[in-house]
Amino acid sequence: MKATVHVKLKAGVLDPQGKAIAHALNSLGYDEVSGARVGKEITLELAETDKAKAEARVTEMCEKLLANTVIERFDIDIQD
Amino acid sequence: MKATVHVKLKAGVLDPQGKAIAHALNSLGYDEVSGARVGKEITLELAETDKAKAEARVTEMCEKLLANTVIERFDIDIQD
Repeated sequence: MKATVHVKLKAGVLDPQGKAIAHALNSLGYDEVSGARVGKEITLELAETDKAKAEARVTEMCEKLLANTVIERFDIDIQD
Repeated sequence: MKATVHVKLKAGVLDPQGKAIAHALNSLGYDEVSGARVGKEITLELAETDKAKAEARVTEMCEKLLANTVIERFDIDIQD
């Protein structure tokens, strides 16, 4: 079973890396870009067969290690 | 219009950050995790109304700046 965790900065949290990307794209002539935000996508390989159990465990992993819940939010996708 | 770009390491490319995450999760007691890989998720705000044109432009941005196509692959999602 695979789990994909999407970790993004919460709305309102400054994203200097995203700002740099938007600025660089504008400099390259992509003037239609008005903003960019950068997040992480973590794919986990799980030796687990129960989808609900996997989701509960991955949520715990996010809260403990993968995301900083003060400034970040996360979504979890479980695939077979 | 928004575009979400998912940038991942190609299969076979070593991912030390993913290895470190898998190892840390195992140390925390999550023994079901047998591997982890880390990618980037870049959300772009676009002042563009034509979906096909947006996709072509974002593909160009990925090839020029957002992804290193030697070791990374990318997918693009365009949302209204």
